[in-house]
Amino acid sequence: MAGRNGLFVPGPTNIPDRVLRSMVVSMEDHRSPRFPQLTLHCLRELKKVFKTTTGTTFLFPSSGTGCWEAALTNCLSSGDTVLIARFGQFSHLWADMCRRLGLEVQILECEWGEGAPVERYRDALAADRGHRIKAVLVTHNETATGVTSDVAAIRQVMRETGHPALLFVDAVSSLASIDFRMDEWEVDVCITGSQKGLMLPAGLGVTCVSEKALQARRGTANLPRCYFDYLDMLAQNENGYFPYTPALPLLYGLKESLAILEEEGLENVFRRHAYLAGGVRAAVHAGWNLSLCAKRPEWQSDTVSAIVVPSGIDGAKVIDRAFRRYNLSLGAGLSKVAGRVFRIGHLGDCNELMLLSALGGAEMAMIDCGVALEPGSGVAAAQRWWRANESAATGTTGGM
Amino acid sequence: MAGRNGLFVPGPTNIPDRVLRSMVVSMEDHRSPRFPQLTLHCLRELKKVFKTTTGTTFLFPSSGTGCWEAALTNCLSSGDTVLIARFGQFSHLWADMCRRLGLEVQILECEWGEGAPVERYRDALAADRGHRIKAVLVTHNETATGVTSDVAAIRQVMRETGHPALLFVDAVSSLASIDFRMDEWEVDVCITGSQKGLMLPAGLGVTCVSEKALQARRGTANLPRCYFDYLDMLAQNENGYFPYTPALPLLYGLKESLAILEEEGLENVFRRHAYLAGGVRAAVHAGWNLSLCAKRPEWQSDTVSAIVVPSGIDGAKVIDRAFRRYNLSLGAGLSKVAGRVFRIGHLGDCNELMLLSALGGAEMAMIDCGVALEPGSGVAAAQRWWRANESAATGTTGGM
Amino acid sequence: MAGRNGLFVPGPTNIPDRVLRSMVVSMEDHRSPRFPQLTLHCLRELKKVFKTTTGTTFLFPSSGTGCWEAALTNCLSSGDTVLIARFGQFSHLWADMCRRLGLEVQILECEWGEGAPVERYRDALAADRGHRIKAVLVTHNETATGVTSDVAAIRQVMRETGHPALLFVDAVSSLASIDFRMDEWEVDVCITGSQKGLMLPAGLGVTCVSEKALQARRGTANLPRCYFDYLDMLAQNENGYFPYTPALPLLYGLKESLAILEEEGLENVFRRHAYLAGGVRAAVHAGWNLSLCAKRPEWQSDTVSAIVVPSGIDGAKVIDRAFRRYNLSLGAGLSKVAGRVFRIGHLGDCNELMLLSALGGAEMAMIDCGVALEPGSGVAAAQRWWRANESAATGTTGGM
Amino acid sequence: MAGRNGLFVPGPTNIPDRVLRSMVVSMEDHRSPRFPQLTLHCLRELKKVFKTTTGTTFLFPSSGTGCWEAALTNCLSSGDTVLIARFGQFSHLWADMCRRLGLEVQILECEWGEGAPVERYRDALAADRGHRIKAVLVTHNETATGVTSDVAAIRQVMRETGHPALLFVDAVSSLASIDFRMDEWEVDVCITGSQKGLMLPAGLGVTCVSEKALQARRGTANLPRCYFDYLDMLAQNENGYFPYTPALPLLYGLKESLAILEEEGLENVFRRHAYLAGGVRAAVHAGWNLSLCAKRPEWQSDTVSAIVVPSGIDGAKVIDRAFRRYNLSLGAGLSKVAGRVFRIGHLGDCNELMLLSALGGAEMAMIDCGVALEPGSGVAAAQRWWRANESAATGTTGGM
Repeated sequence: MAGRNGLFVPGPTNIPDRVLRSMVVSMEDHRSPRFPQLTLHCLRELKKVFKTTTGTTFLFPSSGTGCWEAALTNCLSSGDTVLIARFGQFSHLWADMCRRLGLEVQILECEWGEGAPVERYRDALAADRGHRIKAVLVTHNETATGVTSDVAAIRQVMRETGHPALLFVDAVSSLASIDFRMDEWEVDVCITGSQKGLMLPAGLGVTCVSEKALQARRGTANLPRCYFDYLDMLAQNENGYFPYTPALPLLYGLKESLAILEEEGLENVFRRHAYLAGGVRAAVHAGWNLSLCAKRPEWQSDTVSAIVVPSGIDGAKVIDRAFRRYNLSLGAGLSKVAGRVFRIGHLGDCNELMLLSALGGAEMAMIDCGVALEPGSGVAAAQRWWRANESAATGTTGGM
Repeated sequence: MAGRNGLFVPGPTNIPDRVLRSMVVSMEDHRSPRFPQLTLHCLRELKKVFKTTTGTTFLFPSSGTGCWEAALTNCLSSGDTVLIARFGQFSHLWADMCRRLGLEVQILECEWGEGAPVERYRDALAADRGHRIKAVLVTHNETATGVTSDVAAIRQVMRETGHPALLFVDAVSSLASIDFRMDEWEVDVCITGSQKGLMLPAGLGVTCVSEKALQARRGTANLPRCYFDYLDMLAQNENGYFPYTPALPLLYGLKESLAILEEEGLENVFRRHAYLAGGVRAAVHAGWNLSLCAKRPEWQSDTVSAIVVPSGIDGAKVIDRAFRRYNLSLGAGLSKVAGRVFRIGHLGDCNELMLLSALGGAEMAMIDCGVALEPGSGVAAAQRWWRANESAATGTTGGM
Repeated sequence: MAGRNGLFVPGPTNIPDRVLRSMVVSMEDHRSPRFPQLTLHCLRELKKVFKTTTGTTFLFPSSGTGCWEAALTNCLSSGDTVLIARFGQFSHLWADMCRRLGLEVQILECEWGEGAPVERYRDALAADRGHRIKAVLVTHNETATGVTSDVAAIRQVMRETGHPALLFVDAVSSLASIDFRMDEWEVDVCITGSQKGLMLPAGLGVTCVSEKALQARRGTANLPRCYFDYLDMLAQNENGYFPYTPALPLLYGLKESLAILEEEGLENVFRRHAYLAGGVRAAVHAGWNLSLCAKRPEWQSDTVSAIVVPSGIDGAKVIDRAFRRYNLSLGAGLSKVAGRVFRIGHLGDCNELMLLSALGGAEMAMIDCGVALEPGSGVAAAQRWWRANESAATGTTGGM
Repeated sequence: MAGRNGLFVPGPTNIPDRVLRSMVVSMEDHRSPRFPQLTLHCLRELKKVFKTTTGTTFLFPSSGTGCWEAALTNCLSSGDTVLIARFGQFSHLWADMCRRLGLEVQILECEWGEGAPVERYRDALAADRGHRIKAVLVTHNETATGVTSDVAAIRQVMRETGHPALLFVDAVSSLASIDFRMDEWEVDVCITGSQKGLMLPAGLGVTCVSEKALQARRGTANLPRCYFDYLDMLAQNENGYFPYTPALPLLYGLKESLAILEEEGLENVFRRHAYLAGGVRAAVHAGWNLSLCAKRPEWQSDTVSAIVVPSGIDGAKVIDRAFRRYNLSLGAGLSKVAGRVFRIGHLGDCNELMLLSALGGAEMAMIDCGVALEPGSGVAAAQRWWRANESAATGTTGGM
C-alpha cells in the first residue's frame, strides 16, 4: 500500500527519526571498560522520568509483561495475597498472572470503563486487619479502555488505613506521557515498557523499584525467579554492566528518547499529551456525538481513547476497514469490549496533524461501515479545540 | 517539535521506509567486478519508467537542474535558438539557463497558470522555415503553478510542421507520477530528479536521451561540457561503471524505488496520483471555495496543487503559520505568484490519510491567518471524493 | 577512537549490513491482519536451522538466559532433579539457575576446558534406576572455554540406558554455526539467543521445543511461570501473533538473517566456521606456540577459541591493552579462568580478513604485555592454513 | 560472501557508524525557516578544514570532478592558458577537461610517480612574461600514484616570479587527511569530494574559493556555466539556502563528519594518517621488499600507497584475486600504471587493525599470484612500526 501507515494503536507508538537513527549501531562488547557509561547514563536519566531519587531503575530484555512478573516474583512469596482492581484487559491479565504464579488474588471487580475504585481499595485495606495483603496492584492507565486512575489517592488510602502492603503500579501506557510520581506516591514498583511513551520499539522492560521492594526481595520473598532477579541485575548495574547480553540498540535508543524528553521538558510532554487528547475527545463528543469507554471525565486517558461504536455497528469491522482501505491502524477492542470499541492511541511522538489523519481516517471507515456521521465532523471539532487551546500547545511549539 | 513533520512540498517527497532502509549501505569499490550488476539493473529498469526501449538512461550526481544543462550543452551549439514557453518559475529558470549558456531563446510568454500553448508552438515552428530553432523545450509539469502540459500535442505540431528540432522535456515533477511516454512522443531528452516521483533524496539527476540527441552530441554541438558529457557517461555505463565516483546510496535507493514502482504497477501509480489529486481538488473547490492557479481543468496537475489564497491574505503567512504552529511544510509561491498561492505536493509515496493531515493543517493555518473557512470543510470534501471514487483507488489497495 | 572497532567477543557478533538495514523499520500494529506473515515465516524458517520438523520454535523477548529459565519452568516441578556437567562459566550459571529455581541439581564436575563427559553421564543415568532425574542438561558449546561437546553421544547414552529424562541443550554459541540436529538427537529443548550465529543484536530468546517437552508443560510440571509460558506463546503463535508486544526490529532482522543462512546454505555455514576456526587454531599453535583452553582437539570449538596466556602474564591486561591501544575487543576469561585466557570469537558474519585483524591485534597486545612472540607469527600461520585449505572455503566464496 | 568487505580503495572510504546513522533522515523542506541552520553550520565549519577565514565554501550536488569544472568555468575564459603538471591519472583527467572546455593547456609532463615539479613550474611562470597563464593547477595528492606534492612551494615560486595567475588545487584525496592551508598558501580554488577524508558517500562536490577567484567570476571570465555557477550558489548560500534541491542526507552526514574531525582535532587527524601510512610503508619496504610508485620519500602520500608489483606479475590479477578470494577491495592501477601497481587506501576512518587486514589480505593475494613473499612479512613490519611509534598514535587513542 502506498504511503505511510497511520499507526494509532496505543503502542507500539511512532518512533521519532532521531530514535530510529540512534539504533543503527554496530554491536560492541558489553563488558568493555567503555560500556558502563551508556548503562549508567540511561539508568540515571530514567529516574527523572519516574520522578524518583530514591528508587532503583532496571532495564530487562523483555516486554512490560516481564516486569509485572519481576515485581511479583521478587517481592512476594507463594500464597501471598495481592489486592487488585480489574476494569480492563490489562488489569485482568495482571491479576491472572498473579494467580498463575501462585498468589492469592483479591479482585475488586469493576465495570470496564471505570477507574481504580479508591473507596473500595480503602474498604479492602481497612478490612485486612491482619495485613494478609502483601501488595496492592493498580493499573495507572488501562490501555484497553482508555482509563487513567488516581494512584495518589490509592496511596492516600493506604496511608490512612496504615496498611504496610507494597504498592505496585502498571504505568505501561502512562509513563513519560501522563504525570507519574514514584517518590511522592511512594510507589514500590512501577512497570513500563519501551514501546509507549518512551517511543522505542518493544523489547525493553523498564521498571523502577523502591528500597522497600528491594528489602522484600532480600528478605523472605520466596517465589522462584532468576532471569528477572532484581539482585542479579543490581549487582551488575552498579558497575554499569548487565547479568546477560543487553539489547544494545534499545539502550542507545533509550538514551536518545530520554534526551528528547529532557529537551521538551517532562511537564511540557504531559501538557502536550493533554492538549492532543483534548482534540481527540472533542472529535468524539462534539464531532461524532459518540462516547468514550471511560465512564467519567476524570478517568479519560490522555494517551489512548477507547471510542464506543453505536449499537448495531461492529467495531472490529471499522478497524478492519480502516486498515485495508485507508492504511490506518486503530486499536482493537479487547476481550469484554471486543467489537464495541475501537481505540486511538495519542501518545508518544505525536502532534495535531498526525491525529487529524487518524480522526479523518476513522470517520471515513465508520461511515463506510454504516455509522451515521458527517464527513469531517470529528476533524472539525478537533481543529476547533486545538485552535482554541493554542496556549496549551507549548509542548508542541517549544522545540523549534 | 513533537511528532512527524507533515512534508507536502512538491519535492523532496516522503521517502518510503523501504527506500530509506535500502540506502543504509557501507561503501564499496565502484570499480569492482560486482558493481556493474547494480548500474546495469538501474539503467535498464529506469527505461520502463520513461516508457522507452530506444532511449538511453543516464544518472548524474547532480540535481535535475544539472540535467537541464546536460541536455543543452550536449546537443546544442553556441548561438543556437531554442523555443520555450514560460508560464512558471521552473520554465523561467530553464529559459534563463539557455540564455546564460549562450543560446538564443525564443520565449512564448504565457500567464502563470497556463499550460504549454500548443497553437503558439505550432505558429512559431511553422514560421521557422529556416529551422533556426534547434530545440523545443517543454515543461511537462510546472511545479510552481501546478500545471501539466500536453507534450504529445507539442510533438504532434512538430510532426505537422515537419520541424526537425529536438524536443526536450522537463519531467522533474511528473515522471513516475503522471504518464510520460518517451518513445511514443519522440522526446529527445527527458529530465528529472530523484526527489520527486522516484521517492529518493535529491542528488541524482535522472535523464533519458534519444538516439537523435546522442547523434547531436556526436555531431557539431559545440557548447563546452565535460562533467555532464553524455559520451563519457555512455562509454563507462556500457560496462556498468561511471566516469567518476557515483553516489552509491542513491543507486541502491533507486533500485528499491524502481522495485516499488514495478510492484504497484506504473499505470496504478498514475491512477493513484489522479485519485489522490482529485480529493485535494475537491477540498480546494467544493470545500474551501478557493481556486487553483491552474487556469483550466485539463492543466490541473496530479502531483502538485497551487492554491490561490483570497485577496487580502498573504500566502507566505499561511505557509509560515502552518510550519511554526502545526509542523506542516507547504510549498511556497515562487516569484510572480509569491504570496498569492501556497502549494500542496501530492506526489510520490502518498495516500489519503497523509493528505487529510495536509488539508486539515492547511485549513487551520488559513483560518488562523484570516481566511473565512469552516474548519473541516476541505477535509470533508476530500473524504467525500475519495469515498465516492473507491474504484479508482486500486493503486492504493492492491499491494496488501 | 578512529576506525572500526574490531569486535571479536564471542557474541554479540558482527551484524551484516543486510541485517542492520532490515531493522530500520517503522513500528506497526502487531495485531494487524498482515502481521502473521512475518511471525509464521520466521517460526517456520527457524526450524530448518534447528534441523527439526517436529519441534516448535519460540521467540521470546529476552536473552538466551530467559530461554534457559523457560525450559526449566515449563517442563519441571519444584524439587525435580536435573543432571548437568559443569565445565565453564555458562554451564555453571545454568546449574546455578536450576538450584535457584528450586530444582535438585546433580552436577558432574569437570575441569574447565573439558567437554561433556559422556561416560559419566552414562554412569549417572544408569545409576538412576528410579528415574529421579527429570532432565539432562548439556552445554553444546561452552562459550567461556571454547569447548564443543558431543550432544549426539549424550543422547546415545540416554538411549542405551533407557532413561526417559528430557534432554535440554544450550546451543547459544553454536546454533547456526556448528551442526546441531534437534530431531536426530531427539533434543527436547534447545536454547539460543539472537546475538551469536544468528547475527542479530541481543534481545530475542530463540528456542525450540519437542512435543515431549510440551507434554511435560501440559502435564504436571508445576514450577510457576507466566512470561515464559510455552502455552501462552503457542496459543498466539499458531495464528501468527504474540501474547505481548514483540520486539519488531529483531523479527525483521531475523527474517533477513535466516535468508542469509539459507542463501549461503547451512552446511556451507558450518564448513566456513570450521575453516575459519582452523586458521585461528593454526595461529595459536603453530604461530604463537600457545595452547587452547580446550583440552582435546575434538572439543575445540569452531565458534570461539579461548587462548591460554603464558604463566606470568595477566590475560586481563592483554585484553585491556588490545581495547585501549588497538580498538580490539577480545573476550575476557570468566570466573575460574579469569586472567588465564583471552577469547577470540570467530562466529557469525566473519571471514579471513576480519580474523587477520583480530590475530594481528592480539599478537601486538600480547607482545606489549610481555608475551614472547614474533610479530606476525600468528597471522602467518593462519594465512598458511587458509591458503592450504582453499577448497574448504566454499562457504566464503560461493555467494559472489 | 560472508563477513565485511575489506574496503581499501582510496575512496570511497569507510563511513563511520556515526556518519552512516546521521544520514538516516526523513526529507524536509529545503526552503523552511529552519533549514538555514544546517547549511550555514556546514559551510562555516568546513572553512576550518580548509584552514581559511577568507575563503568561501561551496557544496555542489556533484562529484569532485564537478568542482574541477566549476573552478575552470567560473574563473576562466575560452582560450585562456592554464599550467598543469601531469604525473598520474587524475592530473591527466583534469588537464584533459581543461582542453575539452576550450582552454589552452600548458602541460609539464612528468613521470608517473613524481610529484609536482616545483622548478619547472617556476621556469614556466618566469618565462610567461605576458601573463598568458591565467591559472596554475596542482594536484595536491595524485590518487593514482600515491604522490603528495608541495603546494606551498608552488605558491612560493608564484610569489617569487610575481605571477598573478590563479592557483587551483585538487585536494580530493588529501583534504581532511593531509595538511592543507587555503589561506597560508593563497590557494584560489581548492577542490575535494565527500567520499575521501570527509568519510561520506560520494555525491557532494566540496570546494573553497578565494575572493580573488570570485572576482574573476564577477569579471570577464566567459566560459559558460550555470549549474556550477558560484554566484548562484553564493546568492542563496548567504541566507542558508541552495539554488536547487540539495542532497539532504549528505548535508547531515557532513555535519557529523565535521563534528568527528573537530573532536579528534585536525592536527591529530593528520598525525594519525601519517602514523598509519608509516606502517603500510614499512610493510611494503621492510616486509615485502617491494617499492612504492612514489619516486621519492617526500612524495609518499599519507592517504594512499601505490605498490609496484614485481615484474612478471600482473597487478590486476592480484586485485582480482584479493576481491574474489578474500573479499578485499584494493585500488587498481589506472591507465599508464595499469597492471603494474595496486593501491591501498589508508585515509578517512581507519586504524591499525583495519590495515592489518588489508596488508594480510594483500600478501595472501600476492602469494597466490606468484609473488615471492613470506606470509605475515608485511603484517609484521607494520606491527613493528606501529608499536615503535606509539607516541605518534595520539589521534587514534585520544578519543576514548
